[in-house]
Amino acid sequence: MQPFISHLKQGVPLVDVGTMRSLINKVGIETFLTELSVRLEQDFARWQQFDKSARYASHSESGVIELMPISDGEFFSCKYVNGHPKNTHVGLQTVAAFAVLADVDTGYPILLCEMCLLTALRTAATSALVAKYLAPKNTRTLALIGNGAQSEFQALAFKALLGVTHIRLFDIDVNASHKVKKNLADSGLTVDICSSATEAIKGAQVITTCTADKCNATILTSDMVGDGVHINAIGGDCPGKTELDADLLKRAQVFVEYEPQTRIEGDIQQLEETFAVTEFHQLVNGKVHGRVDEQQLTIFDGVGFALEDFSALNYVNELIGKQASTRLDLITQQDDPRDLFSVLQANPAVQVAV
Amino acid sequence: MQPFISHLKQGVPLVDVGTMRSLINKVGIETFLTELSVRLEQDFARWQQFDKSARYASHSESGVIELMPISDGEFFSCKYVNGHPKNTHVGLQTVAAFAVLADVDTGYPILLCEMCLLTALRTAATSALVAKYLAPKNTRTLALIGNGAQSEFQALAFKALLGVTHIRLFDIDVNASHKVKKNLADSGLTVDICSSATEAIKGAQVITTCTADKCNATILTSDMVGDGVHINAIGGDCPGKTELDADLLKRAQVFVEYEPQTRIEGDIQQLEETFAVTEFHQLVNGKVHGRVDEQQLTIFDGVGFALEDFSALNYVNELIGKQASTRLDLITQQDDPRDLFSVLQANPAVQVAV
Repeated sequence: MQPFISHLKQGVPLVDVGTMRSLINKVGIETFLTELSVRLEQDFARWQQFDKSARYASHSESGVIELMPISDGEFFSCKYVNGHPKNTHVGLQTVAAFAVLADVDTGYPILLCEMCLLTALRTAATSALVAKYLAPKNTRTLALIGNGAQSEFQALAFKALLGVTHIRLFDIDVNASHKVKKNLADSGLTVDICSSATEAIKGAQVITTCTADKCNATILTSDMVGDGVHINAIGGDCPGKTELDADLLKRAQVFVEYEPQTRIEGDIQQLEETFAVTEFHQLVNGKVHGRVDEQQLTIFDGVGFALEDFSALNYVNELIGKQASTRLDLITQQDDPRDLFSVLQANPAVQVAV
Repeated sequence: MQPFISHLKQGVPLVDVGTMRSLINKVGIETFLTELSVRLEQDFARWQQFDKSARYASHSESGVIELMPISDGEFFSCKYVNGHPKNTHVGLQTVAAFAVLADVDTGYPILLCEMCLLTALRTAATSALVAKYLAPKNTRTLALIGNGAQSEFQALAFKALLGVTHIRLFDIDVNASHKVKKNLADSGLTVDICSSATEAIKGAQVITTCTADKCNATILTSDMVGDGVHINAIGGDCPGKTELDADLLKRAQVFVEYEPQTRIEGDIQQLEETFAVTEFHQLVNGKVHGRVDEQQLTIFDGVGFALEDFSALNYVNELIGKQASTRLDLITQQDDPRDLFSVLQANPAVQVAV
């Protein structure tokens, strides 16, 4: 039997939160983010090979449950992810995500993976990768507006990929900023807590907006932001949730991941369908220029696309190799596939470590 | 803290193949099928409450990977399922399925479940439930054409729900028929192996076609089948895969689960869009009549719908209660939801049994 087939028959490898923590700490988070960004860049470069679709969303009063499938013909991935802002009132996470990576040739799942941590890492790596093409030369200062779960990952990705040295924080809840400052204490970054968004963006070459409220907010207005800046706007990511003033968007050159999805979910949902945007893969493939002069205002209207999870899952799958210590007995293992009924009678045919 | 919230924080309950086997054997497979059919009937009766969509399918040369999401506003379920006929050549299963059941109010997954066995059970329970409305009175004999993984489950569901006492088997590979006969040896059913489809359907009030080849086959032609029969056609379940002659369909009253999906995947894909079919929920709700006379020819063109997985997952979830012995550490558990980064630094915050 081929080694890969034998591997498939041993149960579905699981990377749970504990395993992911160990993996990230073993690799080192900045190395992890850098290597992941290389993988992301390679995958965006072969954009045309992917079978893409806007995510499936099931909305309810309290939030949304989404499915994000994608395939390149060799691997298929799908992330389950929710968004429930009020969960925090009862001590639950806003986002509870996990994903499956599968082998297209056999249809077998080859990895079941937590996506709470991994989503934060892939989002930060994507932000920093896009900024490598769009941020002003010699970017050193990053303003972080909205200091929630994503902030430290953003700071470290911009440090690792762009050489950012200074972080300027603002959140309407100063405790959130203190949390970020504390978590970054040993990072080598200089971190300042600011009393307003206007103060935070002073001297910053890149501004990340990542706020949580599900509403049409105006975190940045056009008069607040000068030229020669790159805005990484990642908090406006579902219908009815935006962060940027329409006039600011109109002044800028706007980049997106996958236009059909961003028109529905991104900050550009405020604008006419005819407002021109550029998909990021065109930058990666040199079909359009990124920053051409230092006075340009660029915006990445990031909403999170299935391709990024796909890249992250494949990266993690390679990191763990065939060594996943936990495997799930999710697929029956009878010798004759037609004899499914025998599974009910048998002693467990395969002992998998659970 | 509310018990339910506390339950959510203890990790995602897992029902793997071994747990499912124990559960089915503990309940008894005929009781399981009967109780599941009650649940299915209740859910079909409240059809309008469900947020429905045709399944997402990612096709490749070797097969298909599908996602089947559905929600009733209280629970959300999604099944991952593939179909790879050539897998058997390398000792793998044709179908490797699993699913998640989630709580809509929080977006948290509340059950991760194998769906190899459970899909077979829900398919059989659905077939028998539909036949309760459509099969001739005093149905005692079931013909099973195509004796693969689904056959024993079909036989036992028709025994449990309709009181079937005789099974007539036909498969182009007689070994498949012998497998079914052997597995049903202690079931109390009289099982005959036949040498052709024509022979198998002699004296049968219900005919189940469940063949595996992905092609436009003609397992039953119109001249083979007399009146006064119910055909349970469940093998034609994806584009390019049909089992019944178009003339046979045209002679019959055809029932489907969810018309938009069946038009693409079912046997009726051969017919004009205008060919009239009836959705099963209308039967359950008494909006249309089922069998009105004994000469009627009825066909259930079953392709498998997400609602059936939803019903099955909720049934299993109630069976296991809060007692699932294995829980997966798939969702981070930090005290402050905004402090995701702390998960990387912490010792495992929650010890879950894996």
